[in-house]
This record gives sequence, structure tokens and C-alpha cells, in this order.
Amino acid sequence: MTHEKLLDAYANLTVHSGLNIQHGQQLLISAPLDAVPLVRRITEHAYKAGASLVTTIYADDVTSLARYNFAPDDAFDTAPAWLFNGMAEAFKGGAARLAIAGEDPSLLAGQDPQKLSRANKARSLAYRPALELITGFAINWCVIAAATPAWAKSVFPGLPEAEAVAKLWDAIFACTRADLPDPVKAWEEHSANLARRTAFLNERRYRALKYSGPGTDLMLGLAEDHVWKGGAGRARNGVICNANIPTEEVFTAPHKDMVDGTVCSSKPLSYQGSLIDGIKVRFERGKIVEMTAAKGEDAFRSLISTDEGAARLGEVALVPHSSPISKSGIIFNNTLFDENAASHIAVGQSYTENIRDASKRSKEELSALGANSSLVHVDWMIGSGELDVEGIHADGSAELLMRKGEWAV
Amino acid sequence: MTHEKLLDAYANLTVHSGLNIQHGQQLLISAPLDAVPLVRRITEHAYKAGASLVTTIYADDVTSLARYNFAPDDAFDTAPAWLFNGMAEAFKGGAARLAIAGEDPSLLAGQDPQKLSRANKARSLAYRPALELITGFAINWCVIAAATPAWAKSVFPGLPEAEAVAKLWDAIFACTRADLPDPVKAWEEHSANLARRTAFLNERRYRALKYSGPGTDLMLGLAEDHVWKGGAGRARNGVICNANIPTEEVFTAPHKDMVDGTVCSSKPLSYQGSLIDGIKVRFERGKIVEMTAAKGEDAFRSLISTDEGAARLGEVALVPHSSPISKSGIIFNNTLFDENAASHIAVGQSYTENIRDASKRSKEELSALGANSSLVHVDWMIGSGELDVEGIHADGSAELLMRKGEWAV
Repeated sequence: MTHEKLLDAYANLTVHSGLNIQHGQQLLISAPLDAVPLVRRITEHAYKAGASLVTTIYADDVTSLARYNFAPDDAFDTAPAWLFNGMAEAFKGGAARLAIAGEDPSLLAGQDPQKLSRANKARSLAYRPALELITGFAINWCVIAAATPAWAKSVFPGLPEAEAVAKLWDAIFACTRADLPDPVKAWEEHSANLARRTAFLNERRYRALKYSGPGTDLMLGLAEDHVWKGGAGRARNGVICNANIPTEEVFTAPHKDMVDGTVCSSKPLSYQGSLIDGIKVRFERGKIVEMTAAKGEDAFRSLISTDEGAARLGEVALVPHSSPISKSGIIFNNTLFDENAASHIAVGQSYTENIRDASKRSKEELSALGANSSLVHVDWMIGSGELDVEGIHADGSAELLMRKGEWAV
Repeated sequence: MTHEKLLDAYANLTVHSGLNIQHGQQLLISAPLDAVPLVRRITEHAYKAGASLVTTIYADDVTSLARYNFAPDDAFDTAPAWLFNGMAEAFKGGAARLAIAGEDPSLLAGQDPQKLSRANKARSLAYRPALELITGFAINWCVIAAATPAWAKSVFPGLPEAEAVAKLWDAIFACTRADLPDPVKAWEEHSANLARRTAFLNERRYRALKYSGPGTDLMLGLAEDHVWKGGAGRARNGVICNANIPTEEVFTAPHKDMVDGTVCSSKPLSYQGSLIDGIKVRFERGKIVEMTAAKGEDAFRSLISTDEGAARLGEVALVPHSSPISKSGIIFNNTLFDENAASHIAVGQSYTENIRDASKRSKEELSALGANSSLVHVDWMIGSGELDVEGIHADGSAELLMRKGEWAV
């Protein structure tokens, strides 16, 4: 297939399997400027599917960087709260949400960590009203990616730009199944497989997961009344959507106060323009009490210092080492892909969908069950072909879930 | 000078003479996608001038058109109220506003007039909270233009695209004085000239203006306590800005109930993607009671039917026929330029700055003085080298203001 046809198939997949746009729904897209051709195709498919209005907010790496180079020092506590409040208003009014990733993973590398930390905190705080509607699945939403030159060059540093971009697009189309004859049908089947896996885990009701591997010896308690999720889910507006394309994970909420031991990252993490690699942390009663990183240690330290919840876990996810993303052998420097190459954990905010009847419980009740609260939610990879994972029952007995990174059940 | 240097001078002029960005101010830009290189230079100058955060909302003609081609019929009463409410919130918080024009003047030509009318009405209604803060000069704002391929091709239909774009940029740089050695200083002098002209007119306190020319015989009453404005003005946040670059006009508020006679347009008008030309209307007691147009008559009829105020005047402006824009001999198909080539009038909303102490008066008081209220504000050109304008004093005596389109005073 030509690139144009694949791009169109990917756009169609996004609108139907990802967002499942409903007649009369508005759609808000955020995208990098380099994604204009993809945005145009998605917009066309969204209108054909019945969208009433599609609005895209473009981000521009050049002007993002210009701020760090030219803005006064006192500028960095400012965030576009007006825009995020507007987005929250749109979601409350029923609009669907698409985020297209594709940013330069190292755009802000080398910038003043103080400025970065202040800017990220201001942004996280301003974004919270909109983010809570997203993480709480008030509306159908989806995150996908577009191959931009800066991202492609970070993934394939040895290739000329055009070749790197083409190769990254091909990897995206393959990992998202957009290159199959009927991508929408392929996603239906894939979702059914993930649903069978979550049904098994939800039936088991483990008290904790135990991780063993090189540099990792971790007992990770699960939140009470936790719910495993994976693949397509029904948002509170009744629409079934796939929040991530691709997605290979099943995930739930850890108990924010019951994580103990050491764990190290198995793949690099791109966070707000900084590349973080070789993370090694030790937890005590849920909190990170020691940390080092081979690269980007300041950025990771800044991340987990954002607030009290940023040093505790908000998500745990299991992904087989043989996932299509892992098999591609590519380090994408982008969480949307890399998190689907390996089992992972996330510091920060937990998802309300991972606690049973979360919408009927107060924040205090959710916290008592073990749900975490934070301005941030950042995944990092801990899975590999050498990691074993056991499920620990309430009576302390163990059941092997993954052996050397593959499902054992 | 190279195009790059001219573009940079134009960006610098916009930030300093147009917006006069203050330290710590946010800046909201709206721009067509083709204006990315200009937006990047403006953003850099804004940060250097002390802006805390610059956010650009890009518009894309391709997706705007896709809506008309693919969206369901019931989509067209929807507007992005969430975005406009966010913008209003930003302005209330002190953000400055830059609009970059450059849209394809005939993008929506030939689309269903019913859909256009519904979409425009929904948009105008949703935009009103933000627009009132702009027209009421709550904050410093500015409108400029960028030469886009679609616009350039409409201005120079006989030229290849790249040549048309280059020629339109050169015209923009010349008409905005960006090609002078010190554009910021040139604007200071130009503003001083316009200030002398408005001081003269404000001292005269005419009751009405009388227009005579081919096809035009119009007695245009002025609002009580009207104020002539022109060039730089002080916004209510204390910042002196030039709301239009270029601007050659002096303007005030007509009396919405005291306009009688006939007037015809002297240049085409681009309105929401439709080109309107050869307008001829008759007013009775302020209201348009008869209208024809040689081209785009449906679009003009739809415009003046938007609401009660859309068939009455909200602005009257005097521009000498020898203005730089007029002398360029170019019909720009864009109001920002064409309105500065000729004297003009606008149907719809009047500017509160054109009524003395408007902020201290109620809407009812403003209306009683003659100020007009509407969801729209659209300029159209009536000036030419054959138009005479007289100022009519309270006692009925006349003073010749313009003879054959040139200032006589």
C-alpha cells in the first residue's frame, strides 16, 4: 500500500476503533504541526462519521523552545489555564478528545531544570480540570502518534531525515495494525483477547504482584477493590473507545502505600523533552525513598518531587515481552509505544476506572483504598525477557503469572 | 532587504507598534497554517519583549472546507464556544490578542447559503463574549495579515503561485511601512498625523456626514457623544496599541436610527469565504430597506439578516483616496487592506470606544445615543476619487471635508 493509503487507513482506524465518534459530537484534537496531513484525514473521517465540529490545537516545537531561549525568567510559572479550562468545558459538553503524540523527545534537553520544573508544574496544575475528565473517562478519547522529523531522527539517528520519517511511519502502521487488510476488525479481535486476560485477573483478586529479575525485587500491593482494564472500554458517556492505539497492556491500580523493594527501568523514558534512562529506585511503604538514573536523573528527580503523589505509584501494567512493539526491536523514545513493549509502572495519578465504583466514592474513600493522587502520571518500563511476575493471593500463596516476560497463565 | 529580514521587521513592528506587548503578558494568536514562519518570528519577538506565554490557534482552510463537504446537515449550528469562552477568560486575565488574516477569500463560495448562515450565526453568538472584550478595548490587540497561497492567487490570479505570494508579501510590507529603515518610528509619525485629524473632527462635533457621488446620496447621522478615533489608542488596561496594521482611517459611530438615502460599494468585500461586489443599498431611518449586489447578493442578504443590528451601521470611516493602500492599485480582497484604501461604513456592532464614557453607561443609554448592537461587524468600501463628504453642523450648515476623495480641510 502507498503511504497515502496507509495514512488514510490509520485515520479511519483512529476515528472508528480509537474514538468511536458519535453523530453530533465535537472533537478536540491536539497535534504537532508536522501532523497536518494526518489531522486533515482524521478530520474528514470524523465528519463522515457524524462529528459536528473538529477543532485542532497545534503545538510547535520551535516556539516551545523559543520560550526557553527568549522569555523572561519570571515567565515559567504561567500556563494556558484559559485553554485547558475551555477544553474541560468542551468535555463537559460531550466533546471527544484525540491527542496526537510526535514531539521531539529531547527538545528541552539541556534547558534549566528549574524553569522546566516550574513550567511543568504550572502546566500540570492548569491542565488538571481537563485531565480529570480524561482519566475519569467522562468522554471517549484516544491517543495516537504521528511520525515527525525530530522524533524520527531520535529513533533512527543514523538515517537521513526523510528515510527516518518513512521508517517510523512504517513502524507505526505495523504496531497499530493499520497495515492489515481490515484494521478495524483486527482491533475488535485484539480487544477481545485483552478482555479475556482482564477477566482472568479480575477473577483472581490478587493482593499483590511480586516482581523478580536482574536488579528488581519488588512487592507491589494492589489497591483494594482494584479493577484490571485493557483494550477497549466504555466511557461514562456510554461510548466504547480504545484510549491508546497501540495498546497491548492490561493494567490496574497499585496500593499507594504498599509498595516495597527495588526496581530498575528496562527502557528509556522521554519526559517533557528530557530523556531519562537507567532508573533504579527503592520503595518503602509505597514511596520512592532512594533513586538514581544513568541519564536524566535531575529530570526524574524533578518529576517525582512534583507533589506527594508523584513519588508513589498510580498504575501497574503487564505486557508480554513478545508484543508486536517489542518484536519491532525499536526503542521509540515515546511512551505510547514503549509502554506496550514491556511491563511497566507509572508514578502519579491513578485512573478512577481501576477502582470499582470509583464515581460513587469520595476522594478520601478512594485514597483509603490505595488510589494515588498527583498532578502527574508518567509511565516507565520495567519489563524484559528476564522478568518473572507472580500473583500473590490474600492468603499469601503465589501463582506464576509471567515467566521470563511471557504470560505463564 | 531579503524576504527573511522584511518578515522579521514586520514581526518586530507587530509586537512593538501593533500590540505593544508588556512584561508578563500572555499573547493569544490566531493564524492560518501558512503563517507559521511569521508566527515563529512574532513569538520570538514577543518573548524578547517580556511575554510570559504565547499560544497560537491555527486555522486550516482544508479542514474548514471538509466540514461543508462531509459533516452531517445538523452540524452547522455548532460553534467552538468552549474555545471562545477560554479566549474571553484569557482576555479578562490580561492577555493580549493578535489576529493574523490571510484566509482564502472565496474558500466557501458556492457552499449552501443556509449552512453558511447557520454556521456564521452560531460562531458569532459563541464568539460574542470574547469579541466584546476586543471591541471594548479591554486589552491591547492587533490585526495584521500574512500572504497565503490561496489569498495571493485571488489577488493575482494571472501569476504562478510562488510569484503571487512573493508579490503579495511585498505589497503587505509596503502598505504596513515594514520596508522602511525604521518601521516603528514611521508608525509613531503616522499615528501622530491621524491623531491631529481626529482632534480636528472631535472639535467640530458634526451632527451628520453627507456623502455625494455617483450612485451615492446619503445623509449619515452621527451618534450623540460620538468620538473620532484613528491610529494608536489606549486600551482599558492602559496599553497604547495599534489595533490594525495597516490603518489609514479615522472612524466614529454613526447613529443607528439616523441614516437615510442611497449608497453603493466602491470595492469588493470578502465575507466568510464569499466575495461580494457591486452592493447598492437604501437606508430609511438607519435601516437598510432595499439592497442589491452584482455578486454575492445572497451572502450580503444573509449578513444583514443576522439580527436587527446587522441591517444598521456601527462604524463610519474616512480614508483619503491617495492612501498608500489605494495607491498600490491592488484590490486585496481583504478588509484589513481594502478598508484603508477608501472611506467605508460597517454594518453591525459599533465600537464602545467611539462613544464618550461608554464604559460608564448602560446598554440602554448607549442605544439611546445611537450606538448599534449586533453579532456582526463587517466593513464595506464606499469611497472613491469621485466622492465628496461634507460635515453637517448642529445648525444645519455644511463644511466640505473631502473633495473627490481627498481631505479638503
